[in-house]
Amino acid sequence: MHIKKQRLLTPGPTPLYPRALQAMMASDIHHRTEDFRTVYRSALKDLKEVLGTTHDVLMFSSSGTGAMEAAVSNLFSRGDKAIVCSAGKFGERWVEMAAAFGLDAVVLKAEYGDVVTPDRVEAALAANPTARGVFVQASETSTGAAHDVRAMAAAVAKTEAIFVIDAITGIGTMPLDIEGWGLDVVVGGSQKVFMIPPGLAFLSLSPKAWRFAETSNLPHYYFNIKKEKKSADAGESSWTPSTSLILGLGASLEYIKQLGMGKMIENAQLLARATREAAVALGLELFAPNSPGSAVTAVKAPQGWDSGTIVKEFKSRFGAIIANGQGSMKGKIFRIAHLGYFDFADLFAVIAALEIILTANGFPVTYGTGVAAVQKVYAEAAVQVKRP
Amino acid sequence: MHIKKQRLLTPGPTPLYPRALQAMMASDIHHRTEDFRTVYRSALKDLKEVLGTTHDVLMFSSSGTGAMEAAVSNLFSRGDKAIVCSAGKFGERWVEMAAAFGLDAVVLKAEYGDVVTPDRVEAALAANPTARGVFVQASETSTGAAHDVRAMAAAVAKTEAIFVIDAITGIGTMPLDIEGWGLDVVVGGSQKVFMIPPGLAFLSLSPKAWRFAETSNLPHYYFNIKKEKKSADAGESSWTPSTSLILGLGASLEYIKQLGMGKMIENAQLLARATREAAVALGLELFAPNSPGSAVTAVKAPQGWDSGTIVKEFKSRFGAIIANGQGSMKGKIFRIAHLGYFDFADLFAVIAALEIILTANGFPVTYGTGVAAVQKVYAEAAVQVKRP
Repeated sequence: MHIKKQRLLTPGPTPLYPRALQAMMASDIHHRTEDFRTVYRSALKDLKEVLGTTHDVLMFSSSGTGAMEAAVSNLFSRGDKAIVCSAGKFGERWVEMAAAFGLDAVVLKAEYGDVVTPDRVEAALAANPTARGVFVQASETSTGAAHDVRAMAAAVAKTEAIFVIDAITGIGTMPLDIEGWGLDVVVGGSQKVFMIPPGLAFLSLSPKAWRFAETSNLPHYYFNIKKEKKSADAGESSWTPSTSLILGLGASLEYIKQLGMGKMIENAQLLARATREAAVALGLELFAPNSPGSAVTAVKAPQGWDSGTIVKEFKSRFGAIIANGQGSMKGKIFRIAHLGYFDFADLFAVIAALEIILTANGFPVTYGTGVAAVQKVYAEAAVQVKRP
Repeated sequence: MHIKKQRLLTPGPTPLYPRALQAMMASDIHHRTEDFRTVYRSALKDLKEVLGTTHDVLMFSSSGTGAMEAAVSNLFSRGDKAIVCSAGKFGERWVEMAAAFGLDAVVLKAEYGDVVTPDRVEAALAANPTARGVFVQASETSTGAAHDVRAMAAAVAKTEAIFVIDAITGIGTMPLDIEGWGLDVVVGGSQKVFMIPPGLAFLSLSPKAWRFAETSNLPHYYFNIKKEKKSADAGESSWTPSTSLILGLGASLEYIKQLGMGKMIENAQLLARATREAAVALGLELFAPNSPGSAVTAVKAPQGWDSGTIVKEFKSRFGAIIANGQGSMKGKIFRIAHLGYFDFADLFAVIAALEIILTANGFPVTYGTGVAAVQKVYAEAAVQVKRP
């Protein structure tokens, strides 16, 4: 008999930062008091700091999908032409949302595991000179692939369109120079690099994006960026906010500021690289080998396997929750997460557990092979990975 | 020197139920697992039980305003005629929302502190036979007044319109026989009688309301009742939900079930009555004397006072947060809350503190006068107020 600690190892909700969880306990606070305004102002200021932008950053009490909707319903009008990149389940969400709000979407589709290349975006913009927006995922969580938002942004910046990025798992796993690259709208969520439970969504808005808000005619009320900006300037949120999560966010932002967002990104990138090398060392195939992101690494199940077996055995043997494929990828891939509060010790354990699960289910590997690949990445990087 | 415990005594966020707060700590849970589905199914089932309805009850990760919007954007179409009762700040929210979504609103306005009478609703329905909906607050939190939703429902039931009730502070403070009275849509929020932090909203939907969803043409995505119903039937939420709050809700619902929602209502009603009697005993004037609700009691500040003085002194002298007036009532009234986790001991302390604050600021009262009025209500009711 052995005990199995419960471990949440998914790309969102990500492992919780303990001090943030503790901070949530202080939620006997009222949202229209100076005590709360101090907390809220500080959270918004710190969010801007860790995102590295002077653009307005707004917060909504909703999942990240709510902030995606805010971008659509506050900045566009019925019939507006939009270029929508779709390379997985979250790209499909942009497509669905554009349809729900009556945008005229030109969908640039890539197969799951693949990405939409910047030249396709450039060509679509050239072919659709009236396009008002380009929508993309920085990191497509369902496949682990990352888009080249920098190159896309350069193409969009030359046009009248705005560039709207779902960076829910992009923030904290890849550099995103919001102002330098021209990222007009950047959407984030609390349960990702911010290491707290789900329920808060963020978005940053460039001056170009704000100009779009002047002409938008789509109905909206709960997600109202103009009202929210006015409220935020007064240290409040328009509606009763998720106070407990905002208190937790404050604690997480302290940690991220202390460490530096660059280090959080470097950490995710190192763990992602180590995971890819471990997978290859174990004879497994990566699902997005050409454009791997660092939020999550999707690995194909061995030939003939249902990837659910691996997910289930992580739970039953080790108490650990890892992610299956989503949508049409369910049963085909499993996903190992890196964004947020993950470290090398987590990854040593995940890969060792994976080796046992593979071997026990008829895909024998030499114990320690994958772990050694992770250790090698650690050893090479250790000199640079200094704690603050 | 004396210490001042921090006490949140507002009509939302209401005082937190400690076990619910503790339950939130277990939020290292993934929302697409059987563990979570068990929690979510149980919360939805218990919600229906405490609301006393077999109607579908859906949950959104948002403030209550989000569920109000869900009712508008999922059940109505641009240009639909609607009767909107507005007797305070939250009535104005219905008016704003109807305008945002392009409804053709007939506004029945009552002065702050007053209510819209059922006969006005009946007359408006007769004058507007094409009206598709009637919107009201069960309890208008900004004034403490309560609407006679039962009589209004009887009028609406005879028409083709649906009756949409913001019961955010109505639930748990007044009887609401959802099916018996014909309450088509009932909206609630987590930070009220449910005694947990803000961030979750609920709504129940009658079969008549669901039929409206078939013809509605307003755009919506995040708040999608059809999708949410399908997700709920599978034990999940459509988007990543506020897991921490759902865990807390589970614990609160256990408490409410054990006590019985009827007892929660009786408790609020007793505290409200005791507060009114204390206010009168102290020579203060009630703000909504004719239709007092039991969620919160609004009391006018003494002649020539800014009610902010009372609110500030509650904080500075006793560490307690009570509510000022909202909107145009700010500075004129202060509000003592009763809904949720409030008890007589809280009220003894609130009234004793109030007596001190009044006396210290030039409105001398005989110490103990207000407290005695509360004690009298307690003594009369004590026989009936049995713990489960």
